[in-house]
Amino acid sequence: MTGPVSSDPHVSGPQPHVRGDALLIDGKGFANRLTQDIAEDVRAFYARHQVTPGLAVVLVGNDPASEVYVRNKALQTHRAGMRSFMHMLPETTSQEELLALIARLNADPEIHGILVQLPLPGDLDPVAVTNAIDPRKDVDGLGVVNAGRLALGLSGIVPCTPLGCLLLLKAYVGELRGLNAVVIGASNLVGRPMAQLLLREGCTVTVAHIDTRDPQALARQADILVVATGCRGLVGADWIKPGATVIDVGISRIRLDNGKTRLVGDVVFDEARHVAGQITPVPGGVGPMTIACLLRNTMQAARELVEGVETP
Amino acid sequence: MTGPVSSDPHVSGPQPHVRGDALLIDGKGFANRLTQDIAEDVRAFYARHQVTPGLAVVLVGNDPASEVYVRNKALQTHRAGMRSFMHMLPETTSQEELLALIARLNADPEIHGILVQLPLPGDLDPVAVTNAIDPRKDVDGLGVVNAGRLALGLSGIVPCTPLGCLLLLKAYVGELRGLNAVVIGASNLVGRPMAQLLLREGCTVTVAHIDTRDPQALARQADILVVATGCRGLVGADWIKPGATVIDVGISRIRLDNGKTRLVGDVVFDEARHVAGQITPVPGGVGPMTIACLLRNTMQAARELVEGVETP
Repeated sequence: MTGPVSSDPHVSGPQPHVRGDALLIDGKGFANRLTQDIAEDVRAFYARHQVTPGLAVVLVGNDPASEVYVRNKALQTHRAGMRSFMHMLPETTSQEELLALIARLNADPEIHGILVQLPLPGDLDPVAVTNAIDPRKDVDGLGVVNAGRLALGLSGIVPCTPLGCLLLLKAYVGELRGLNAVVIGASNLVGRPMAQLLLREGCTVTVAHIDTRDPQALARQADILVVATGCRGLVGADWIKPGATVIDVGISRIRLDNGKTRLVGDVVFDEARHVAGQITPVPGGVGPMTIACLLRNTMQAARELVEGVETP
Repeated sequence: MTGPVSSDPHVSGPQPHVRGDALLIDGKGFANRLTQDIAEDVRAFYARHQVTPGLAVVLVGNDPASEVYVRNKALQTHRAGMRSFMHMLPETTSQEELLALIARLNADPEIHGILVQLPLPGDLDPVAVTNAIDPRKDVDGLGVVNAGRLALGLSGIVPCTPLGCLLLLKAYVGELRGLNAVVIGASNLVGRPMAQLLLREGCTVTVAHIDTRDPQALARQADILVVATGCRGLVGADWIKPGATVIDVGISRIRLDNGKTRLVGDVVFDEARHVAGQITPVPGGVGPMTIACLLRNTMQAARELVEGVETP
């Protein structure tokens, strides 16, 4: 194996390493190059329109993990040359106050993307809040309109994590048409939109989940295996068809004997890399792609809002 | 086999016949009982609100098949005690004229459901027209909002044909959770929403289509096989797992040697019935369920518009 098959410019630059038997899918490097390209798009967009894309991130409450996520998002947004607006609200915030903020952000011409960090605390209704965001600014792609556009094969804003997985697959696998894809996990955030994207690419797609009887047998039929369950170490070597491409979306933090912690995925990497043809590591695989795709979606939203052009 | 396993009231009444080995799924009888139940709902709804549910059907142009469909829909609507409004427009109708009509129907409090018969002639844009319908009146469930609600597992209006298939499956199979379902055909009208519905019921769902490499091998793994390709006779006995439940959505008209015509499905019924556990015939299987579900959706839309209650 000699590296990604695609001619996508994002995979020029340094080639992925080979470790064990499988080619390592370098999500971190890919995300860095994607972010650089977006930074260039931001500059060119400013030169054309004197407008800088702006992303508003809303955090309600004090969940420590969420605080880390939104800080990272804000930082990366800023680094890509975009405007980053943070709205950090106390957990006493009412649904009405939150909806009023979203209405102001919807109307604000300096804001092209709006993201409300989930989960929301207390009685705040995530469905109502997500769907209050103008679909053109819904850069997480989690609202009803963008989900419907994806389901119907229309252009729209696609959720960041599955979009990141798809970009990696297109770069490393090339043509996906006709391949057997198995997605383990049926969440609205990853599994379901991932299945839609793979279907759109012409894969034969199976969605497995908690009620699936023999997920291992199904997984072993997959040319492309996407694992997004949150169950660390679920998928061992005997779940993988030799040569398959494995995308591990899971991220769990485990505590080691020495008291330190480490991030691990849903796939037992050290086993799986001897069977898979290509595999994403954790960390450094899908994770970095999620934020890069958030920036990509914000750039897309700005383009559509300012230029009125739909990205196909 | 002794008939449907469900306690659904729609399958009380006469039991399905056994022909060959497979139990015949009596879509026609089920649809008749469903329509009778809806007629009762219509009367009770009128007694409560002095409102009769109204369905507007819009036909543009003179496609003979479409004319038959809309006449049938109007007739059945009327028979269920609803108001039926037909708008038959010449094929010279412009997009603006059609959108203006939809805007009037959206605003009309006597109209609870709007259906624009597809395909549309000429340059009329079916996506723009479908999405101009108020999602609460989109009784075909083909607009972006209802597709998104289905994809996200929220309540909404579900396309009639896959809804009809699901009602038959729930009545004849019972609990669907954990079953392997294979859907052949990935259209927005049937295959894709069918896959979403089966996923919602807890099936492990595979969508196969024109690019699938070995659809026969996939089909043979299915406990539930839904075939919606429009390729008559595609699925023979050797595509079916013994005892599986087979739902044949295809309807093609063939000309016989004696000059008469006959309707056939995508499944070779006379072979398949010796292998399947339960199977829908063509005609008399899925077909009658489609119109019955259109009435069901119109009743649901009227309820939500008048009572403001969401049907889960």
